[in-house]
Amino acid sequence: MRIALGVEYDGSGYYGWQRQREVNSVQQELETALSRIADETIELQCAGRTDAGVHATGQVVHFDVQAERPMRAWTMGMNANLPDSIAVKWAQQVDDDFHARFSATARRYRYIIYNHAYRPGILRQGVTHYHRPLDVDRMQQAANCLLGEHDFSAFRAAICQSKSPFRHISHLRLWRQGDYVVLEIKANAFLHHMVRNITGSLLDIGSGRQPIDWMQELLEGKDREKAAATAKPNGLYLTEVTYPVEFGLPESSAGPLFLQEESC
Amino acid sequence: MRIALGVEYDGSGYYGWQRQREVNSVQQELETALSRIADETIELQCAGRTDAGVHATGQVVHFDVQAERPMRAWTMGMNANLPDSIAVKWAQQVDDDFHARFSATARRYRYIIYNHAYRPGILRQGVTHYHRPLDVDRMQQAANCLLGEHDFSAFRAAICQSKSPFRHISHLRLWRQGDYVVLEIKANAFLHHMVRNITGSLLDIGSGRQPIDWMQELLEGKDREKAAATAKPNGLYLTEVTYPVEFGLPESSAGPLFLQEESC
Repeated sequence: MRIALGVEYDGSGYYGWQRQREVNSVQQELETALSRIADETIELQCAGRTDAGVHATGQVVHFDVQAERPMRAWTMGMNANLPDSIAVKWAQQVDDDFHARFSATARRYRYIIYNHAYRPGILRQGVTHYHRPLDVDRMQQAANCLLGEHDFSAFRAAICQSKSPFRHISHLRLWRQGDYVVLEIKANAFLHHMVRNITGSLLDIGSGRQPIDWMQELLEGKDREKAAATAKPNGLYLTEVTYPVEFGLPESSAGPLFLQEESC
Repeated sequence: MRIALGVEYDGSGYYGWQRQREVNSVQQELETALSRIADETIELQCAGRTDAGVHATGQVVHFDVQAERPMRAWTMGMNANLPDSIAVKWAQQVDDDFHARFSATARRYRYIIYNHAYRPGILRQGVTHYHRPLDVDRMQQAANCLLGEHDFSAFRAAICQSKSPFRHISHLRLWRQGDYVVLEIKANAFLHHMVRNITGSLLDIGSGRQPIDWMQELLEGKDREKAAATAKPNGLYLTEVTYPVEFGLPESSAGPLFLQEESC
């Protein structure tokens, strides 16, 4: 039987999604709890392998299991067995041809910037502090050139293992909510560090250190060395994974928390 | 010289505002950092003595100091000396007749409920999880009877030291944002546990366990034993303290985080 889960986590205490020897990972915690409930060894596949310190409100995973358990074992039972920084939001049986990673048609991320002269005291591992004033209109104008299918080599980590540097960004919006600036980006898939590298360069444009058309230059130059430093993981959330409707997976609010849809 | 500070904190790691022997308190952390910067012993007065686990985005404090320091010493200097769960948002010199507690004319609190079948993974010490569906309209109808000047004995902790059980609630609104329910309450001052006791009883009404007019009954009965259990501290934030305009204190966004003003 194949089961899919919707998972939320605070990534600040983990060395990322992927299981590694001798360090905490979200995958390890979930697999340990699932294996305990199933009383068999469970291996997980996820939609997006988030980096160390990156969070998720809409991660989707799947696993195969022999044991039959009531569906609430995979939600409430899991939540009772997981550390409190990881929570299952829904569980659903899926067809055997569903795959959390390969069936996904798009991923959506949100990056949350606390734009204030002084650092925050609340959710300090869940937002990125940026102390210089940011002009969100400038950032949006600069970002628009990224929409569509492009070679994103300029925003790709050196260790990225993807065969192709091409990705298709279908949505990239920025807006301000009080002292916060939110960047929302949706693409078919992302290269390693792509959201954080794009964000880093947009911060330089928003603060006036770089002109608006710098983004176009970077994109065309395809040279990671030219772009800004990678933005911190703190403010990054995987908020949604899109699948073909025939799989019938539930929808969750994107969040994080009470962050609503675009309000600008 | 008298100086006022605006302070934000995540209260989950503290035994409340007030300095006590051998346990962590927000007051102790602030006084230690201030005394280090001033190189003299500083004692603080605050607007609202929050309980263990209660947070603040809009706490206001004041202190007297002999040492002359540039104003940024009380903001950036403080933030460099404080634990990362406490942050100074602004600092301002004030007249000697300003008192953080006695000059305040009103306090505003927000209580944030994560209303979902399963527990949260993000900001888990900063929201209160309530798994039964809540009817916010019922809660608002029930809450309306609390507006104005009343004897709030029904919602007063046994250990409350106030001479009078009378308080004046000028504003009490509830609204839903996705999976979150926000309660916002403003009064001249609050009795001990008053917000959490009111919230506890409103949760019983919102979930249908108690009728809408139960709130009126409780208020008139003046018996703490009859009301519901005290709601947890996790979801409670002191978001604003009001002072006469002549003190000229800065305004901050209430929050917490990107929570906006009432959206219903």
